[in-house]
Amino acid sequence: MIGLFSENLEIVNVGLTSFGDNIRKAGGRSLDLQWRPPADSDPEVGWKLATLINHPLVETANERAYQAYLSAQPVLEGVGIAGEELPGFNGRMILYSGPPISWEDMCGPVQGAIIGAILLEGWANDIKAARMLAKNGDVCFAPTHHHNAVGPMAGVISPSMPVWIVRNQEQGNRAYCNMNEGLGKVLRFGANGPDVIERLRWMTDVLGPVLKKVVEKLGGLELKPLMAQALHMGDEVHNRNVAASSLLLRKLIPTALEAGVSSADFAAVARFIADNDHFFLNLSMAACKAMLDAASGVPHSSMVTAMARNGVMFGIRLSGLGERWFTTRAPVVNGLYFPGYSLSDAAPDLGDSSITETAGLGGFAMAAAPAIVQFVGGTPHDAIAHSREMANITLGCNGAFTLPAFDFTATPAGIDVRRVVDTGIEPLINTGIAHKEAGIGQIGAGITSAPIACFNQAVAVLADELPSWFE
Amino acid sequence: MIGLFSENLEIVNVGLTSFGDNIRKAGGRSLDLQWRPPADSDPEVGWKLATLINHPLVETANERAYQAYLSAQPVLEGVGIAGEELPGFNGRMILYSGPPISWEDMCGPVQGAIIGAILLEGWANDIKAARMLAKNGDVCFAPTHHHNAVGPMAGVISPSMPVWIVRNQEQGNRAYCNMNEGLGKVLRFGANGPDVIERLRWMTDVLGPVLKKVVEKLGGLELKPLMAQALHMGDEVHNRNVAASSLLLRKLIPTALEAGVSSADFAAVARFIADNDHFFLNLSMAACKAMLDAASGVPHSSMVTAMARNGVMFGIRLSGLGERWFTTRAPVVNGLYFPGYSLSDAAPDLGDSSITETAGLGGFAMAAAPAIVQFVGGTPHDAIAHSREMANITLGCNGAFTLPAFDFTATPAGIDVRRVVDTGIEPLINTGIAHKEAGIGQIGAGITSAPIACFNQAVAVLADELPSWFE
Repeated sequence: MIGLFSENLEIVNVGLTSFGDNIRKAGGRSLDLQWRPPADSDPEVGWKLATLINHPLVETANERAYQAYLSAQPVLEGVGIAGEELPGFNGRMILYSGPPISWEDMCGPVQGAIIGAILLEGWANDIKAARMLAKNGDVCFAPTHHHNAVGPMAGVISPSMPVWIVRNQEQGNRAYCNMNEGLGKVLRFGANGPDVIERLRWMTDVLGPVLKKVVEKLGGLELKPLMAQALHMGDEVHNRNVAASSLLLRKLIPTALEAGVSSADFAAVARFIADNDHFFLNLSMAACKAMLDAASGVPHSSMVTAMARNGVMFGIRLSGLGERWFTTRAPVVNGLYFPGYSLSDAAPDLGDSSITETAGLGGFAMAAAPAIVQFVGGTPHDAIAHSREMANITLGCNGAFTLPAFDFTATPAGIDVRRVVDTGIEPLINTGIAHKEAGIGQIGAGITSAPIACFNQAVAVLADELPSWFE
Repeated sequence: MIGLFSENLEIVNVGLTSFGDNIRKAGGRSLDLQWRPPADSDPEVGWKLATLINHPLVETANERAYQAYLSAQPVLEGVGIAGEELPGFNGRMILYSGPPISWEDMCGPVQGAIIGAILLEGWANDIKAARMLAKNGDVCFAPTHHHNAVGPMAGVISPSMPVWIVRNQEQGNRAYCNMNEGLGKVLRFGANGPDVIERLRWMTDVLGPVLKKVVEKLGGLELKPLMAQALHMGDEVHNRNVAASSLLLRKLIPTALEAGVSSADFAAVARFIADNDHFFLNLSMAACKAMLDAASGVPHSSMVTAMARNGVMFGIRLSGLGERWFTTRAPVVNGLYFPGYSLSDAAPDLGDSSITETAGLGGFAMAAAPAIVQFVGGTPHDAIAHSREMANITLGCNGAFTLPAFDFTATPAGIDVRRVVDTGIEPLINTGIAHKEAGIGQIGAGITSAPIACFNQAVAVLADELPSWFE
């Protein structure tokens, strides 16, 4: 005490910055520690978190789950029709992105996309009739993730749509994704006009069959090396896929010509792919889903195996808690808006594409993609800082995906729900922003984060399911 | 003096580091300034440099030359046959890279490539006869640059070879380059076996005609935006062209299919391009040549408009001194060698491809291409440092080419011979390394620099040609 009053005051301040301000005002020195209480200050979750930290059951399970993710080898195996390929996908069923939600509660863009899919399938002849059908329960709705699939934005998959088939050659599981329609007025942003439906018909009639032939002839395409190469070419394979799309086309073209696809058809397909810098996104998502499904279902593992949004709710799944969802309200993204649009026009965060961040790509691999800041905001320095920050909440780094601008460091991967809750650092997500009304389309892009409330819930349940050794 | 002995010694040391070491040993502080005397310590050149610095004639000329370079708009206009397209290219003539050199003095790879070209043209039936023809003066040799052309490594262009035709739409000048054969045993590294000649025949018979049709149908392709995009995808468009090659293929493919090229031919062409990550290099070089030729011929300008090597001599040209070459011995590159090879196997620096550095790309744009350090050595930090250092010797930065990892700074461009001589900073060049014997091919890659002796000579002549106002 004597020292306290006679010496110069040097303080490490854990708490509000204003505490330190007073010290500084009085002539002392204060270092403000960047810290927030674990579990978002919820003492009950905090105690549960404490039981999970360094728990040998959790550590062992995580090791198993994380190694499965690391060793997964997603290969583009083929192209098929959703109704024939997806497990459990029968009858009048339509899939949508994110955690489960009922028709009444869906956001505008998802309802719009579902109406479009009903028209595409010919189950109704106009928008009004399609809406009635959906409302009356004459169509069955389910999340994509419940059928081993993913889809960007609305994520709508109906039976006749062509899908990418990705097989994880290491563990044998398959993942599926619909095909990218391009930008502008497209189904995944809720548009459902005649031009949208016509494009989808062409994708079923021409794009799917042509790509099916080409991929067959190609005999499978390993996706991890291609994604790794794209990371060295400025993509993060979520919101920037220009290199990956180009590399994919480069792989497909010579084979297509040798596979004897009709010139006219292939010209149209090549033009369609060449005109769409985002074409690879859906393959990237299927590859990420295949890698993460390999890690799922390991009891007691705290590794996050899915993050997905339906435009109303944000949901996550844990390896150790199988197919359960932990959800909270989806945030509205404060990003870069296209001219004429603002925050008030935006639908809340939407789509399965955050599967890329779950797999250590997208926002986690932003250091690879400095040029993306022109699309989602920030500076190249921020992009590196984001990758660095995410390493605080992951189980490790994936040596298959390295980041040149970050000295070839491996990308942080395998989100540990315990670390998120302990540090309060929310997983970053690079995302597109949809208009809240159906049919308008993309109005911006930005960086958002996965809300911590989902992670708090998951920690609580994971802790509750630990065997009661110490009771 | 009294102060000197009573105070602590604090020294700024301009000179040898060892001067500072003595101060430090004696307990003083010394800051070693990174400095070397201008003009490589040659007092005569130093005085001449002094007359050029801030000289209004030179400044005005540089402004004109640099603006011409900046405003140039190179467009891929077509594909043709060298013997029909290149100005002044008649009869039994063969072009090679770098400054002028006689047959006897040429390095192994260039002699080997010339022999291959003679066989390709059918002017001789075997290597021995081809060598005799070359030796006896029955073939005329000239530098590519003397015919508005450039070529990587040996740079050999013979009459029947297909060439890229690039037109600068702003000033109207044209530049030409041969086509890239791929890696391994290829003519540009001096190989001339039957497989090399057969590939060159196919390039004349199939590749050239197919690309001619496609480029015609495309109606011209602006190269600057494509190169700028490639810089955002990790290329520096000299030794790394994977993004640019992919983007080019993406542009060509749909058009090729619509242009009615035969499927079999186009399949072979697409495969050939898709299998070669360096395919775009030759177009990049032609584009750079077109931009720099726009800047050439401005009297008194100290801007460098060409840097080129023939495997024996390194040469540069200045805008203000037209078609004159300033040469010195070409350095051997201390780079990363492929397994089994070392410095003692290497031919001295070779090829016209340093036209990319002259245009602010390649080594000057290395900050755009962190992944290239795996090929040429160093770290991503070095890559950024290189771009930063080059800004010390250029007239400005080219806003058309920005470097994401360097905060979207524009690439330093327009080498000022005065600044090189004043600072002693030699222009950096990313380069491939050829075996010194003909026919073996590439044995490594690395970073080298343009030897200052050429720049000293050029400064002296440029100063001599200033009007003698002050005499």
